[in-house]
Amino acid sequence: MIQRLIEKIQKTKAPICVGLDPMLGFIPEEILKKSFQEFGETMEGAADAIWNFNKQIVDHTWDLIPCVKPQIAMYEQFGIEGLKVYERTVRYCQDKGLLVIGDAKRGDIGSTSAAYATAHLGKVKIGESLCRGFDTDFLTVNPYLGTDGIKPFTDICKAEDKGLFVLVKTSNPSSGEFQDQKINGVPLYELVADKVVEWGQDSMDNGYSNVGAVVGATYPEMSAVLRKKMPHTYFLVPGYGAQGATAQDLKPCFHEDGLGAIVNSSRGIIAAYRQEKYARFGAEHFAEASRQAVLDMAADINSVL
Amino acid sequence: MIQRLIEKIQKTKAPICVGLDPMLGFIPEEILKKSFQEFGETMEGAADAIWNFNKQIVDHTWDLIPCVKPQIAMYEQFGIEGLKVYERTVRYCQDKGLLVIGDAKRGDIGSTSAAYATAHLGKVKIGESLCRGFDTDFLTVNPYLGTDGIKPFTDICKAEDKGLFVLVKTSNPSSGEFQDQKINGVPLYELVADKVVEWGQDSMDNGYSNVGAVVGATYPEMSAVLRKKMPHTYFLVPGYGAQGATAQDLKPCFHEDGLGAIVNSSRGIIAAYRQEKYARFGAEHFAEASRQAVLDMAADINSVL
Repeated sequence: MIQRLIEKIQKTKAPICVGLDPMLGFIPEEILKKSFQEFGETMEGAADAIWNFNKQIVDHTWDLIPCVKPQIAMYEQFGIEGLKVYERTVRYCQDKGLLVIGDAKRGDIGSTSAAYATAHLGKVKIGESLCRGFDTDFLTVNPYLGTDGIKPFTDICKAEDKGLFVLVKTSNPSSGEFQDQKINGVPLYELVADKVVEWGQDSMDNGYSNVGAVVGATYPEMSAVLRKKMPHTYFLVPGYGAQGATAQDLKPCFHEDGLGAIVNSSRGIIAAYRQEKYARFGAEHFAEASRQAVLDMAADINSVL
Repeated sequence: MIQRLIEKIQKTKAPICVGLDPMLGFIPEEILKKSFQEFGETMEGAADAIWNFNKQIVDHTWDLIPCVKPQIAMYEQFGIEGLKVYERTVRYCQDKGLLVIGDAKRGDIGSTSAAYATAHLGKVKIGESLCRGFDTDFLTVNPYLGTDGIKPFTDICKAEDKGLFVLVKTSNPSSGEFQDQKINGVPLYELVADKVVEWGQDSMDNGYSNVGAVVGATYPEMSAVLRKKMPHTYFLVPGYGAQGATAQDLKPCFHEDGLGAIVNSSRGIIAAYRQEKYARFGAEHFAEASRQAVLDMAADINSVL
């Protein structure tokens, strides 16, 4: 699976992932109004607005990018109706030829992780039939429970040719509280990194493993250490743009050949029309602003590679 | 909220949580057959079977117990249909007067955790209206991202009088891989425990905080340390029964007055009829076997308190 992602990155020349994390506050008034008129100020109304918003963003960016990353929490907050739109968005993006990273950060004890792996990457046996659930191409997972909480995910990746990104060093301000704690002089996130390499050894796909790592762009000196430590691990890199990291900060996440990382941007792209820089598009052309933001982001990243 | 749980524990004399984690393999053939006949071997069929199974277990145990803990992964694996049954189960249990711990182990960066907190404990603003999603009473959360990933959950707990259980020391075999690593001589799970106490200080409800901790029963010597370290933190304790911990192992999780912990059992109760001990009930009386298993578990735990 990771090889498919790399091929798409090479084809688009854009190591970019569009974070489809549609907060209602990002959605233009006109779209909200229309959905609320039809379905009321209800979960159905919110879900309809999110769908119309997502669809336009995807329609205006799909040919420029290798993949999208919907954050499931943003859908889960609208209950069942929200999750239906998550599923619909995943399918729509895949039909457009995009790879989909389900950003769910799941993780539990073995039997429970197996259920999550089935839910998001695999298929569930019902009687004699096999049914697929959310069925994304990649999933983000949380390592706090250790190997037996991750193994069901790596097993499914092997069986189904899917991929993972395991949290190693996250982009948020307090990520260091536990992740940076030193164990015999080595920070916890490096120990996690060692395990991620181990978990991925069995699932190589050409030069990289299907088991990748989440490495925040907001801590570039740490990214540099991790890049050296995990030469065959692809990085999913949050933190660019709205969270503060610049293209220079991203550089240590990449290898010299320009591979090794895919950078996520969510509100920087999907809510681009609200930035002064893209104000000329206006709310009604929000998706064209998103397209321009993707082009600008690709140019910005490529300028340092 | 934690005070409501304590009152229910005192009333039922059962510090027990029934884990509603219905794997299809636990569900009697007759129930499956009926659901598959009506809905086929589909997600709808599986969901219908799970609902009928859950309902009978709840109908036969609700008067004996303070709360239930549905593991959302077991529903998520059946996609939207599964999640509808999760929601229906939550509502049904609350209507019976049970408290519900949503076992979701969510956790992310601040803005995303806020969405999860809204999804599972709070209400979401849609236009001028406020809508509730899964709306459980408690939620389990993962601390790997640190304070800013937890704060949105504690904020909602305060605003809505809800509760949390934060993973501290989990019950699974490889939980020690990261959680037991020593930082200046102190294991990581103790550092997490200190933070859990800090996060909960602002949300006291009589003698205990609404911010509790998940402490596995399978490591009793560690439970003893944590019990002393966190005198005002309620423990949600997995690991009893099927995972190997005995009543003696649970003892260190409790204070001398018999409070301080609630013990989960999932398959030990919901699939009791498959144990030799309860074979006399037969598959058709599976829910009566579950009732007997609850009574036996309460007696077992009370024998050491």
